[in-house]
Amino acid sequence: MHVADAPPHLRILRLLRDEGPVSRAELGDRLELTRPRLLAEVERLVAAGLIAEAGMAASRGGRRSTLVELHPRLRFAAIDLGASSIDIEVTNGRLEPVATYREVSDIRSGPRVILHRVNDLLAKARTDGAFDRLDAVGIGVPGPVSFRDGVPVSPPIMPGWDRYPVREFLAREHGCPAVVDNDVNIMAIGERHGGVAHSVDDFLFVKIGTGIGCGIHLSGTVYRGVDGCAGDIGHIQVDANGPVCSCGNTGCLEALFSGAALARDALAVARSGESPALAERLAGYQAAARRAAESEGLSADDEALEERVTITARDVADGAAEGDVTCIRLIREGGRRVGGVLATLVSFSNPSMIVIGGGLAQLGHVLLAEIRSVVYRRSLPLATGNLPVVLSELGSRAGVTGAAVLASDTAFEQAS
Amino acid sequence: MHVADAPPHLRILRLLRDEGPVSRAELGDRLELTRPRLLAEVERLVAAGLIAEAGMAASRGGRRSTLVELHPRLRFAAIDLGASSIDIEVTNGRLEPVATYREVSDIRSGPRVILHRVNDLLAKARTDGAFDRLDAVGIGVPGPVSFRDGVPVSPPIMPGWDRYPVREFLAREHGCPAVVDNDVNIMAIGERHGGVAHSVDDFLFVKIGTGIGCGIHLSGTVYRGVDGCAGDIGHIQVDANGPVCSCGNTGCLEALFSGAALARDALAVARSGESPALAERLAGYQAAARRAAESEGLSADDEALEERVTITARDVADGAAEGDVTCIRLIREGGRRVGGVLATLVSFSNPSMIVIGGGLAQLGHVLLAEIRSVVYRRSLPLATGNLPVVLSELGSRAGVTGAAVLASDTAFEQAS
Repeated sequence: MHVADAPPHLRILRLLRDEGPVSRAELGDRLELTRPRLLAEVERLVAAGLIAEAGMAASRGGRRSTLVELHPRLRFAAIDLGASSIDIEVTNGRLEPVATYREVSDIRSGPRVILHRVNDLLAKARTDGAFDRLDAVGIGVPGPVSFRDGVPVSPPIMPGWDRYPVREFLAREHGCPAVVDNDVNIMAIGERHGGVAHSVDDFLFVKIGTGIGCGIHLSGTVYRGVDGCAGDIGHIQVDANGPVCSCGNTGCLEALFSGAALARDALAVARSGESPALAERLAGYQAAARRAAESEGLSADDEALEERVTITARDVADGAAEGDVTCIRLIREGGRRVGGVLATLVSFSNPSMIVIGGGLAQLGHVLLAEIRSVVYRRSLPLATGNLPVVLSELGSRAGVTGAAVLASDTAFEQAS
Repeated sequence: MHVADAPPHLRILRLLRDEGPVSRAELGDRLELTRPRLLAEVERLVAAGLIAEAGMAASRGGRRSTLVELHPRLRFAAIDLGASSIDIEVTNGRLEPVATYREVSDIRSGPRVILHRVNDLLAKARTDGAFDRLDAVGIGVPGPVSFRDGVPVSPPIMPGWDRYPVREFLAREHGCPAVVDNDVNIMAIGERHGGVAHSVDDFLFVKIGTGIGCGIHLSGTVYRGVDGCAGDIGHIQVDANGPVCSCGNTGCLEALFSGAALARDALAVARSGESPALAERLAGYQAAARRAAESEGLSADDEALEERVTITARDVADGAAEGDVTCIRLIREGGRRVGGVLATLVSFSNPSMIVIGGGLAQLGHVLLAEIRSVVYRRSLPLATGNLPVVLSELGSRAGVTGAAVLASDTAFEQAS
């Protein structure tokens, strides 16, 4: 919903969230509210415990006006579930973190295990003094979501989660409103709140991590599609003769370039020796694993060790930084694949910015340069004339930031 | 703008446009307006000459209520400029045509020539008694448009039109509001008003004509992109080794399949004899052209004749209907190309319907079957589970219908 369309109480709360304490006088001017209307709204929000007075503003000439701010007691829980991680921030009303938790976790353990672990972490946050009670919970999950129903819908990498009542569970457990969205959508929302897409109305947020997805922000709001799966670009076919994907089709974008695909290709060129930089790292990791096994008195079976040792995007980025041509080639080939798909999406949606985030964003400017080159070459000049293609600013915090924005919006909307 | 968000006068006018005469009592119920509010709004719209009383409604028990309708005098001009055609409808308030004009014309003649020809046709319509004065003019043009500014923006096939003040010109000439949009957007709007996408909020309208474009209807409204060129899908690269396109890139969708591309390929298989059905038609056309030349006493130079004679999409459709395998192959190959791009756009935008329109829609179910097959095979099941891929119902009237909708919306919005 556009700010201008929103009811006054929502506009007041959002302004205080995004800009901090403001005097009553300025609030009335900024939101174009008459003095009696403003007074009534402020009084109601004070009574509801959502805002509080915060001393006197500096004089603008004439009578000094009272500052108002979001109530210091307000707390939101922001949760970002990844394929293999749980990230939680408890924030104040201004969405500043007051407590942060991160742990490794497997989304395939199912909703009961994962959501109870989320509850345990939040119980710990309460014990740690991060909050007395929560005003809203926002959560992102790595799969399609029916935003209206607050449930995952046929999520391919989340067995057991299909239509599990995530929103209802969290709302009941914490006695507050809850909101559920796709993980890439919350990253896009986060980047728009506090990152590189600040105040940009039309942009694409492309997450390149374990998989690939796209958050679509159009006309100032997230576009989720009729089934909640808009932006599911990882399974676009980019090479009819490419490798088989986890979805069963061949040549999907994420079968060719994603965290998993890059790890596979990097390991291959490390083993073959084609990449000296990665071969050296692989040997180092194997030696370390062997020492660790020996120090625990286990037999250091070379073959088993070799299977456990992996190469990551970080290694490829480091190799590229050292000038290893194979590492650079792997990144550029990936960038070319992603760029090809993005060129199509730019022609279709004519956005004003593209933000690249997710774990593989650490491949940095080599990746970015290749994506840009393909997007600019293959899309029409009108669509790319002023189109920045940039890296995420928030990095791994994009998701929780967006979840906090959603949580606060939900709390504010229900305060009418 | 969603109907529910719109101000009362707009909701009244749209309801009367879309459904015809309604009693005051029903109007109040349907729009959830209090009786005093409704009376005030109706009185104001009567005074503004936009609505009129139309006798008494049938009794619903109790006092009979007066029917109101859009004023019978209301007239909108709807104009659809194609690459090689001008289509005009003058409609009444309910968007029913009261006069229709169609003529061949070359958009490359530039705005002065084309818009003066439009004015001549409208002058004729006035002389024919179609209207005394116009309440609004809506026009679609075959290129990107800044909807806000009412001007074409860098339109590739419209030399001389870049930023020409089309809206201002028409508004001044006709003394009424005017609105300018892209031709594919108005076709999408038309199809949603009176065609197969009736009341569908999220759909893609794919026009396959001289070129290829896509009208994007999301959350109940046209999405035009930040530069007005959203949906410009004709220059998406589908084959890096494909033919050179008019845009300078290689292997663009419309270089491989569009009216122009199909005419080129059809002529080739007619000349080579690979398609007996097309070879026979070509020979027939050449003989007819020779007879026409002879009857005019011109020399029947075979080579020059051969260059003038063309094969059209209609011929290919007829050949396919007769079972000519090469015609069927040409259509299926085209459908496969379009389907591949649409599969990508479905994964990205998760719409609830795809409508295929434009001149090549006459290739009918052979084309449709191939597009469907590729879209369903390559997109994820969640996005295609309930996704109809259907042919336009309005055909060549889609554009003028949409232009009339836009014109009426503009007139109604300015009536506040």
